[in-house]
Amino acid sequence: MLCLGLLGQRAAAQQIASPDGQLKLDFVLQAGGVPTYSFTYKGRPVIKPSRLGLVLKEGPDLASGFAVAGTSTRSFDETWQPVWGEVKNIRNHYNELTVRLTQAATKRAMVLHFRVFDDGLGFRYEFPKQPALEYFTVKEEATQFALAGDHKAFWLPGDYDTQEYSTVTSKLSEVRGLMKAATTPNASQTPFSPTGLQTPLMLKSADGLYINLHEAALLDYSTLSLELDDKNMVLNAHLTPDALGDKGHLQTPCLSPWRTVIVSDRAGAILESKLVLNLNEPTKYPDVSWIKPIKYVGVWWEMITGKSTWAYTNASNIKLDSLDYRQVKPNGMHAANTAHVKEYIDFAAQHHLDAVLVEGWNTGWEDWFGQGKDYVFDFVTPYPDFDVPELHRYAASKGVKIIMHHETSSSVRNYERHMEQAYQFMNDNGYDAVKSGYVGNILPRGEHHYGQWLNNHYLYAITEAARHHIMVNAHEAVRPTGLARTYPNLIGNEAARGTEYEAFGGNNADHTTILPFTRLIGGPMDYTPGIFQTRISAYNPSNKSFVHSTLARQLALYVTMYSPLQMAADLPETYNKHLDAFQFIEDVAVDWDDTKVLEAEPGDYITIARKAKGKNDWFVGSTCDENGRTSTISLGFLDSGKTYLATIYADGKHAHYEKNPQAYAIRKLSVTRNTRLTQYCAPGGGYAISLVVK
Amino acid sequence: MLCLGLLGQRAAAQQIASPDGQLKLDFVLQAGGVPTYSFTYKGRPVIKPSRLGLVLKEGPDLASGFAVAGTSTRSFDETWQPVWGEVKNIRNHYNELTVRLTQAATKRAMVLHFRVFDDGLGFRYEFPKQPALEYFTVKEEATQFALAGDHKAFWLPGDYDTQEYSTVTSKLSEVRGLMKAATTPNASQTPFSPTGLQTPLMLKSADGLYINLHEAALLDYSTLSLELDDKNMVLNAHLTPDALGDKGHLQTPCLSPWRTVIVSDRAGAILESKLVLNLNEPTKYPDVSWIKPIKYVGVWWEMITGKSTWAYTNASNIKLDSLDYRQVKPNGMHAANTAHVKEYIDFAAQHHLDAVLVEGWNTGWEDWFGQGKDYVFDFVTPYPDFDVPELHRYAASKGVKIIMHHETSSSVRNYERHMEQAYQFMNDNGYDAVKSGYVGNILPRGEHHYGQWLNNHYLYAITEAARHHIMVNAHEAVRPTGLARTYPNLIGNEAARGTEYEAFGGNNADHTTILPFTRLIGGPMDYTPGIFQTRISAYNPSNKSFVHSTLARQLALYVTMYSPLQMAADLPETYNKHLDAFQFIEDVAVDWDDTKVLEAEPGDYITIARKAKGKNDWFVGSTCDENGRTSTISLGFLDSGKTYLATIYADGKHAHYEKNPQAYAIRKLSVTRNTRLTQYCAPGGGYAISLVVK
Repeated sequence: MLCLGLLGQRAAAQQIASPDGQLKLDFVLQAGGVPTYSFTYKGRPVIKPSRLGLVLKEGPDLASGFAVAGTSTRSFDETWQPVWGEVKNIRNHYNELTVRLTQAATKRAMVLHFRVFDDGLGFRYEFPKQPALEYFTVKEEATQFALAGDHKAFWLPGDYDTQEYSTVTSKLSEVRGLMKAATTPNASQTPFSPTGLQTPLMLKSADGLYINLHEAALLDYSTLSLELDDKNMVLNAHLTPDALGDKGHLQTPCLSPWRTVIVSDRAGAILESKLVLNLNEPTKYPDVSWIKPIKYVGVWWEMITGKSTWAYTNASNIKLDSLDYRQVKPNGMHAANTAHVKEYIDFAAQHHLDAVLVEGWNTGWEDWFGQGKDYVFDFVTPYPDFDVPELHRYAASKGVKIIMHHETSSSVRNYERHMEQAYQFMNDNGYDAVKSGYVGNILPRGEHHYGQWLNNHYLYAITEAARHHIMVNAHEAVRPTGLARTYPNLIGNEAARGTEYEAFGGNNADHTTILPFTRLIGGPMDYTPGIFQTRISAYNPSNKSFVHSTLARQLALYVTMYSPLQMAADLPETYNKHLDAFQFIEDVAVDWDDTKVLEAEPGDYITIARKAKGKNDWFVGSTCDENGRTSTISLGFLDSGKTYLATIYADGKHAHYEKNPQAYAIRKLSVTRNTRLTQYCAPGGGYAISLVVK
Repeated sequence: MLCLGLLGQRAAAQQIASPDGQLKLDFVLQAGGVPTYSFTYKGRPVIKPSRLGLVLKEGPDLASGFAVAGTSTRSFDETWQPVWGEVKNIRNHYNELTVRLTQAATKRAMVLHFRVFDDGLGFRYEFPKQPALEYFTVKEEATQFALAGDHKAFWLPGDYDTQEYSTVTSKLSEVRGLMKAATTPNASQTPFSPTGLQTPLMLKSADGLYINLHEAALLDYSTLSLELDDKNMVLNAHLTPDALGDKGHLQTPCLSPWRTVIVSDRAGAILESKLVLNLNEPTKYPDVSWIKPIKYVGVWWEMITGKSTWAYTNASNIKLDSLDYRQVKPNGMHAANTAHVKEYIDFAAQHHLDAVLVEGWNTGWEDWFGQGKDYVFDFVTPYPDFDVPELHRYAASKGVKIIMHHETSSSVRNYERHMEQAYQFMNDNGYDAVKSGYVGNILPRGEHHYGQWLNNHYLYAITEAARHHIMVNAHEAVRPTGLARTYPNLIGNEAARGTEYEAFGGNNADHTTILPFTRLIGGPMDYTPGIFQTRISAYNPSNKSFVHSTLARQLALYVTMYSPLQMAADLPETYNKHLDAFQFIEDVAVDWDDTKVLEAEPGDYITIARKAKGKNDWFVGSTCDENGRTSTISLGFLDSGKTYLATIYADGKHAHYEKNPQAYAIRKLSVTRNTRLTQYCAPGGGYAISLVVK
């Protein structure tokens, strides 16, 4: 239902409320023509009066000297169906205030759009086409988020190049003291301030408000970070600069991304919010039938752990255009060889998985990283032991797809130069999805992973892929902002500390109780769960890392960490030792008709139930922190009058993420919507349940 | 003839001489293991002892601490045929000294190659593949050229982005005082020092030595400029930085470009030198039959003068992806319309010219420049009034080609994204040559026109074009360094102040007596001569510029400014008023079997005779400075026993580049190889002669 109505012209109060009346947005033009806004939830301040505007590189700022030329409001209510998602139907229901500002001294106009939903606020800047403002360079965005207190924050160090940090949980006032320790090493990193923070930023006020700050529809603009003024508890917008330090190059007419504030007094409402998706545009793809969720295994974890290698040889300092790999001695540890890949294909076929990711299939891995190497990969030349046509034939005969891998080493020009040929190579050889990677510092030098230049590139890679009917799962790219609504072939992103870090020293045991409140607010993450052998040394004796999770919790993540692209990340040889537990991975859906958040508290626990797409089956996942807990849930979401067979994959009695991770117990019982379940979760543990109508 | 010989191992003297024994190169490892060289001509110092090496960003420099691990010499003598050129056969004859250096403290090796020809010196650095030196970043090149005196110099301000400056003629000691005035405005410019100079740098010593400094084979390296130490008259290498200020990113094994010193006591020998071409590699193109010299007219000068426009409308601030040109009001001044282009095609066909360049044919010209606009052109969409298929058909029916135009506005990523499609569009529509342009500051921001990043791009554009059998004429790209030997589809470059500046305030009257000694040392220039209507106001009353040349001298430039791509730059309507003079342009060759420099003095005059490819016809051109002169030449280059009809296109009696430019006189006479001709050249004038066997 589409409901458009002009509620009022030049409203005196310049206030709008959410459809349910609980959230209120006030716009006030303060002395000096300074635009400000404030935002309340059930009468409690969420954002205190905060400045709006932009500081420009040339000419007067767009942050003061304004008059209100007019205001208008409208209501909007529509329900739409995502190509893939957590629910079948998404309601987009908001009231909008539009404020048209003019700056008399410069004859420039700027428009503010505020949309107030029942679950939060989105606002953006519009710069209409006008003679006095055609091209401009952003020095900084002046947007503020003045908080109402020294909230508890779940934060990452602000950085122009990576989000692969462990989340720190602290009061905002403690950020400065914790920043140095929080800024752990990464292959490419540019922290910018002792109080710089990334979005999505999850906050909890002392009086129990859950607040999430992020952005939506980040298109042709640089990525938002937040600079904390820790005296006043004000978060100031901090955009990612280009090589010259400028923060955006715009041409009117244009729009900024939406700045988003999701708020509730119930933590689960943050997880249920579709505000970020709703603030993105519907897809313009005329055909989306080729976009399909994927469950996959991959030739990957064995390299991550150090058991085998991406590279075919142990050479260093190679040049693609002058090396004949047939003349070089193989190192004997190269995983992406034809015979071994067939084992993965066999496993996938046997367990009804859709696809096999293969990394390290193409030439160049000998010195791919950290060298600022321009011509690092060509994306079409396999190593001598990887037979592309034969694997295409073999996989097709088994009904399995191979997922392409394009590591760019952040040599972005090189990737774009080869992109058309690389995508065509995929079309020619039966690949319909690609995992891309952006490890290391960006080439061209001086640009950052989160700058406007790169954001433009990531979108180019997605839209070019769409022309080839290819799905994209981009790692080390910018964190998502709901763009998958518009470009639904963007089926995955990394942009956070994924499971790989469990082999690089470990993730905190509460990591997966936080990510859905932070990173996942913008879109799905290819977190690559499913590690059953949590001692990395089992694969590589020299690697002392371990997965900070019980085996049962690894299963829960297929439900709690929503993604249309889910990996079973461990090795088939390991899964074959635990086929009873693997059954959950085989059974769990990757696309959903409905989702219920049953329990949630950021940093402590999350329990979610989801209904499989087009089926009556439900799946439940629960993850908790290092303390363990007992979860009690009602199965009231089940259909009335039906009995379900519940298979519960739970932590064993003495399970513990470090000391006893592989202790699990599987039990089956009949349940109905009247059933209440109580389930122990070990420290760093959790549980998974499949519910099938009997 | 190929003659290779190992003349000596570890020569005690480490000196080599040119094949004729007149030029001597000395290599000396000075105290502290500092490599140095010096260079003499007939016993007179050209380069006094000068340092060699590189300063690196990380780790010890490659400029001292060396020991000589070995030396070797060889002789080389070969004659080769260029795909196009000034002569049919080019002799590549030199003695080479190779010095292998090792740096004990770092276990690194570096190799120096010196080649001494009869006309000068080339030397380069080689960095062999080695464990202790795999990837490195150049902070600066330490190469010096210590001059023997305060020479007269023909110089341009050193700049990372443009060579479109008027040449200043002064003593080196006067550079500093003249720099500010010399640094005239340009669409993109980054001067770097009050004593920075560009190459090719032409020098003349007080005792009459002509010295030219440049580089050859600039590949995957940043462009060389020279920083003058005006106390000691030492020129220090100064490379072009990237956005971070670094000056080169190298991976061993690799080679620097050659640093070149051409020297003679006869100015004409500088013009005759093929040293820069000889230091480039032979072409690897298996087929060069598609590469052909071109004489052309173009829809261009009328826009340069302001008579008409590139843009179809007078709109500003347009976006390619949202503008429907059929809805926008045309400005009525758009030159590249189908009917008008047909007039050019008719003219070309009538006068046996090969092609018509058409600029402003494609959408986007409304605000193409100076905005840092990323998606500025798509290179395939014509304006509504330009009918690509019809013009293809019409031109083909007349035996005329249309030359494509790709202005990139320096939005280099955008060009690369569209390049394959743009070249394919050319193939599909009968275009076999493209003029490309790089006006304005480079995108990605912070990179420079002459940096390694862009040098890599220009070559990419050339090699990708070669795959499509397309010839490239790149404007505002890096000045050439002889690469056309290796990549002969690079048939033209601008990279200097071309004829267009005659409509932008004017070039100095001596400009064309200097360019062959400077800019043209690296390769041909698309100078676009042939302006008969030297008062720009005749086309655009508001433009008060005038061409600083007589009409007769405009004809001479087709001979003196060697290029396989020669434009008749004026308008057909003007040529139709002077068809007697235009006959020379119609007749003159664009490819040559032989060339003789008859008279030459940089800044004063140049007279050159050339023999047309595969014919007995000769053409002579003479250009002089603002003072005028009388030229006396012998026709001894003609075949003995033959009589030739000479048609002499000379300045009229009172001709003057400013006051009376269009006064010319054409006379015919019979001549033989025994004829001596004496011809008056007006101030800013010259003459042209065609010589046809009777």
